[in-house]
Amino acid sequence: MIVHFAAGAPVEEYVRRYDGIRLGDAVVTSSKHKEFDPAYEPYVVKKFVAKDDVQLASRAYEPQTRLLDLGRGVKIGGTQNVTLVAAGPCSVESLEQIEFSARFCQNLGIKMLRAGAYKPRTSPYTFQGLGLEGLKLLAQMREKYGLLIITEVRDATHVEEVLEYADVVQIGAKAMYDHGLLRRCGRSQKPVLLKRHFGATLQEFVQAAEFILSGGNANVALCERGIRTFETKTRFTLDFSGAAYLKTHVNLPLFIDPSHGVGWRWGVADLARAAVAFGCDGVLIETHPNPAKALSDAEQQLDPDEFSALYQSLGAVAHAVGRKIV
Amino acid sequence: MIVHFAAGAPVEEYVRRYDGIRLGDAVVTSSKHKEFDPAYEPYVVKKFVAKDDVQLASRAYEPQTRLLDLGRGVKIGGTQNVTLVAAGPCSVESLEQIEFSARFCQNLGIKMLRAGAYKPRTSPYTFQGLGLEGLKLLAQMREKYGLLIITEVRDATHVEEVLEYADVVQIGAKAMYDHGLLRRCGRSQKPVLLKRHFGATLQEFVQAAEFILSGGNANVALCERGIRTFETKTRFTLDFSGAAYLKTHVNLPLFIDPSHGVGWRWGVADLARAAVAFGCDGVLIETHPNPAKALSDAEQQLDPDEFSALYQSLGAVAHAVGRKIV
Amino acid sequence: MIVHFAAGAPVEEYVRRYDGIRLGDAVVTSSKHKEFDPAYEPYVVKKFVAKDDVQLASRAYEPQTRLLDLGRGVKIGGTQNVTLVAAGPCSVESLEQIEFSARFCQNLGIKMLRAGAYKPRTSPYTFQGLGLEGLKLLAQMREKYGLLIITEVRDATHVEEVLEYADVVQIGAKAMYDHGLLRRCGRSQKPVLLKRHFGATLQEFVQAAEFILSGGNANVALCERGIRTFETKTRFTLDFSGAAYLKTHVNLPLFIDPSHGVGWRWGVADLARAAVAFGCDGVLIETHPNPAKALSDAEQQLDPDEFSALYQSLGAVAHAVGRKIV
Amino acid sequence: MIVHFAAGAPVEEYVRRYDGIRLGDAVVTSSKHKEFDPAYEPYVVKKFVAKDDVQLASRAYEPQTRLLDLGRGVKIGGTQNVTLVAAGPCSVESLEQIEFSARFCQNLGIKMLRAGAYKPRTSPYTFQGLGLEGLKLLAQMREKYGLLIITEVRDATHVEEVLEYADVVQIGAKAMYDHGLLRRCGRSQKPVLLKRHFGATLQEFVQAAEFILSGGNANVALCERGIRTFETKTRFTLDFSGAAYLKTHVNLPLFIDPSHGVGWRWGVADLARAAVAFGCDGVLIETHPNPAKALSDAEQQLDPDEFSALYQSLGAVAHAVGRKIV
Repeated sequence: MIVHFAAGAPVEEYVRRYDGIRLGDAVVTSSKHKEFDPAYEPYVVKKFVAKDDVQLASRAYEPQTRLLDLGRGVKIGGTQNVTLVAAGPCSVESLEQIEFSARFCQNLGIKMLRAGAYKPRTSPYTFQGLGLEGLKLLAQMREKYGLLIITEVRDATHVEEVLEYADVVQIGAKAMYDHGLLRRCGRSQKPVLLKRHFGATLQEFVQAAEFILSGGNANVALCERGIRTFETKTRFTLDFSGAAYLKTHVNLPLFIDPSHGVGWRWGVADLARAAVAFGCDGVLIETHPNPAKALSDAEQQLDPDEFSALYQSLGAVAHAVGRKIV
Repeated sequence: MIVHFAAGAPVEEYVRRYDGIRLGDAVVTSSKHKEFDPAYEPYVVKKFVAKDDVQLASRAYEPQTRLLDLGRGVKIGGTQNVTLVAAGPCSVESLEQIEFSARFCQNLGIKMLRAGAYKPRTSPYTFQGLGLEGLKLLAQMREKYGLLIITEVRDATHVEEVLEYADVVQIGAKAMYDHGLLRRCGRSQKPVLLKRHFGATLQEFVQAAEFILSGGNANVALCERGIRTFETKTRFTLDFSGAAYLKTHVNLPLFIDPSHGVGWRWGVADLARAAVAFGCDGVLIETHPNPAKALSDAEQQLDPDEFSALYQSLGAVAHAVGRKIV
Repeated sequence: MIVHFAAGAPVEEYVRRYDGIRLGDAVVTSSKHKEFDPAYEPYVVKKFVAKDDVQLASRAYEPQTRLLDLGRGVKIGGTQNVTLVAAGPCSVESLEQIEFSARFCQNLGIKMLRAGAYKPRTSPYTFQGLGLEGLKLLAQMREKYGLLIITEVRDATHVEEVLEYADVVQIGAKAMYDHGLLRRCGRSQKPVLLKRHFGATLQEFVQAAEFILSGGNANVALCERGIRTFETKTRFTLDFSGAAYLKTHVNLPLFIDPSHGVGWRWGVADLARAAVAFGCDGVLIETHPNPAKALSDAEQQLDPDEFSALYQSLGAVAHAVGRKIV
Repeated sequence: MIVHFAAGAPVEEYVRRYDGIRLGDAVVTSSKHKEFDPAYEPYVVKKFVAKDDVQLASRAYEPQTRLLDLGRGVKIGGTQNVTLVAAGPCSVESLEQIEFSARFCQNLGIKMLRAGAYKPRTSPYTFQGLGLEGLKLLAQMREKYGLLIITEVRDATHVEEVLEYADVVQIGAKAMYDHGLLRRCGRSQKPVLLKRHFGATLQEFVQAAEFILSGGNANVALCERGIRTFETKTRFTLDFSGAAYLKTHVNLPLFIDPSHGVGWRWGVADLARAAVAFGCDGVLIETHPNPAKALSDAEQQLDPDEFSALYQSLGAVAHAVGRKIV
């Protein structure tokens, strides 16, 4: 059995797991790693647990889905058999808007509020998010409504802020390859939800998670949110086949995002129910007080009535597959 | 409101539907259509019910999902709220093999047996199917076990045979663009299950159905079976986002095929449950008496125990979304 | 060294090539092949020249590009170092239109006229081609202007007609998987230009050629014409990387079709020059007397002036890479 | 005529170009932009030069290809009619290795050396590049051999270093969406080569360039380096169709990277000649003193003999299309 330690990896844990490795066995691979953490050096070994560079995330390394404690009593993965619903608008737009959403979630019994403050827009000529101001509004909602906050970090220039304000740091699809982010999150213990880039193979997706895991942060969940294909009637193609691969081969809790996965309001409810029956550990669903006025992703956000109806229907589906909605 | 009649289309029906059109209005578009059916000529009008060449299949033409009577009391679509499970091996390989499968289906209460006799293999150097002999074995199973038979037609050279032996003619993914097949099926009244080519847009997929519908055969169902994307850890990417488009915009009953959609045994059960919760009208699932010995698609066929366990779990999921498994 | 003979394969040729195989060695693989050609049976052997089911087309079987004699003194492949330019409109639309094109080609010194009579349109509500009437017009052009004719067969229902009228039978992208066609062409000696389906892997593409080659017809050329990707500003993505694979690994002459490969007039000239510098054996370019009036593919056909200017520029490019335009 | 000014955009230049706009006309769009540059506020106008958020890069804004002065007398774009060849290894690995490459380039008359110091590897368990040490080695080569240096910035954490050491900053495919990088480069005047993400549409690609341009840096060139498709026999699909779109619709100089575009040594030479005949403004080609020993991209780097032969052949191709290799 073989493991290759990366910079800053918690060596003792590996050693504990593998009989065949003793601390004295370790060999330095390359002086280039020094930049990250010189202390790890004597422990790096040239050994792999699995082929293809998926190591710590693979079920060959740890068969059971990792348990993630997200705070305020919410745990996913492990033997919890729960599916977490995180809901909220695409972007924080104003105090009124986000407070409407927070109260709406609280009333339904939803425990995690999602909303973006740093938006990775494709155009420089559109709304770019409220930035730090948005993070502060989210923190207010956490205090006032007792909600967990998940929000996106766009790039390495503001990662410290997001680490400070969020309960779960979301690395969005477009930032999945951002080494600056991945490495910084690996030196934190904050839970990270890593979304798959729409052009990333499953292999690359899990390898991006390995950057965080091997850096020393074991609290990582994955999110399938749709890949880019030739189809244009939907904005993305939600890759349930890929999700099936991740669920069976990878030990990280798995989220599915039906809102981005289809990109149009008409598809979200059926896909969300499919995701719950599929047996994922969490779903992210966008809902906005008034989608027609949304500053981003107007077409895919559910209005409050649509979302309530969907949310009410999820419990029975979860129950049919031995799970519970939290 | 505008409709463009195609060769052989049942003009009276269109006229009945559209106030603004009278039979006398019709205009011939092109002498090229003569080859198919000269009789239609005086009725062709240059009018469309929807933009983008999806006409008879669109919910703008007929809002409700079409009701398909597949025979032996099995009906799907309409207001039935049922999801049909069709099961069986990839290919008919021998009497023993197919009889095992037929008995297995009958015991579980499954009403439709699927198996291929003409296999559209990618290589000329592998098993190509039993052909007519296979069709005859399937017909035997229908008589002996009271099952409906769905089987694939590979190309126009044997379409008459398949029309004669099958209860439902399956036009496989690779034959989706085959005009010889589509046009011939348009002149039959036999139910047709049209599978999406793995490289076809939803637009092209529905337009292929329009060739059958406009030819005069209203008994068409669609099947999403996975598209080809950059991902290689799964054989195809089951396009649930596309299925959501079809379910909301197209009036044809919709099947989902999780077996081809992921291509590996480990993904089939979760995807089949997702498909049922999604609310499709039918699922196709491959199961083989002994997958390891299968002459085609060995990796994706469930063994009898795996399939039974999956099948037992589908009823509760269907119930959770207001449907019933048939 | 291993070869697997397919139905109807010219066994003696294989035996001649491989020292290790004698006619007496051959073993029947499966009674299923009987349907195609019972006579081949005693010669089938379970041996392959290459892994992955590419056999007769691989450079491991025959290192040199095959020489194709297209008639009227035109030869491609082998050691000819020529690039054939085939030009003409997307569809035969009328005598006037096709005669303009034929005369235009003749004046420029072009030897092969391309035009479709059976069009594989995606919609049943558009122009479907002139069919047999179109083939007869093309045959007239051959006689009157001394041109070679390449035209498309859409499906197996009219393959006999196209085999009779064409000098080179084009199997279009949408028909690439049509076994009825591939097998029928394998029993002819007519040169076949097989176009890659826009959703086909290179592996499947060459395997489709293997159906023809193993059926006994060695006169096959391939054509890359663009694959379907996520990009929508171009109609297809001309796969030059795939063309590089085919050129280096496959022994069949290779055509490139810049017109379909980009789908817009503005891209054709630069891509055609790139194709010639790349070193392919042929290019197909669409040009129409009046593109704005074309009944199909109006956006991608060059007008006579644009085409003339392009054609004049190709000679120097070919010369720069040691080739000659024919 | 309509222009929308972005944060920090040089308003006067826009005003100069457009008769219809006077500085007094400008309207603030959103207080969210304040974070970037409060000073721009009074000048932002709600006007666009083109639909679809491609503005400053579009030929509707500026018809002629922009002229880029890369230093040491090397200019591309404008009316130069040159194709720049930048060559060198994938990564800087050691002084010996990079000095071999620098001398090799100098001997051939090549003016720009390419090599990576910060490598965006997909796995944390492989060589990650020499980092700052690599940048310093490249700077040595510039001084000693008179070469321009192009090297990649991986993420926002080391962008200052790369801006300091490189003559041209390469934003690699995986970093194309990195707003931290794009915005920082927009505040510099250093020439930037922006590579297309393998999952990015042309629209997104040009919009990423708009982040730099609208930030105030007009010195941007684009590089097509292959997109990710379903094909696996090549590592990527070099998108010549997309390149044709960019060449005809976008006013930024265009590079093509055949090395990454196919990912295998056997394809590079034919694709490089195709790129030159296509008429691009630059090509990036990987060559390594000993590819078999390369620490990254071993399969696609040419050895010195292969590269020399290719390089010698490019002049004639360029000449055939009215260009010159620099």
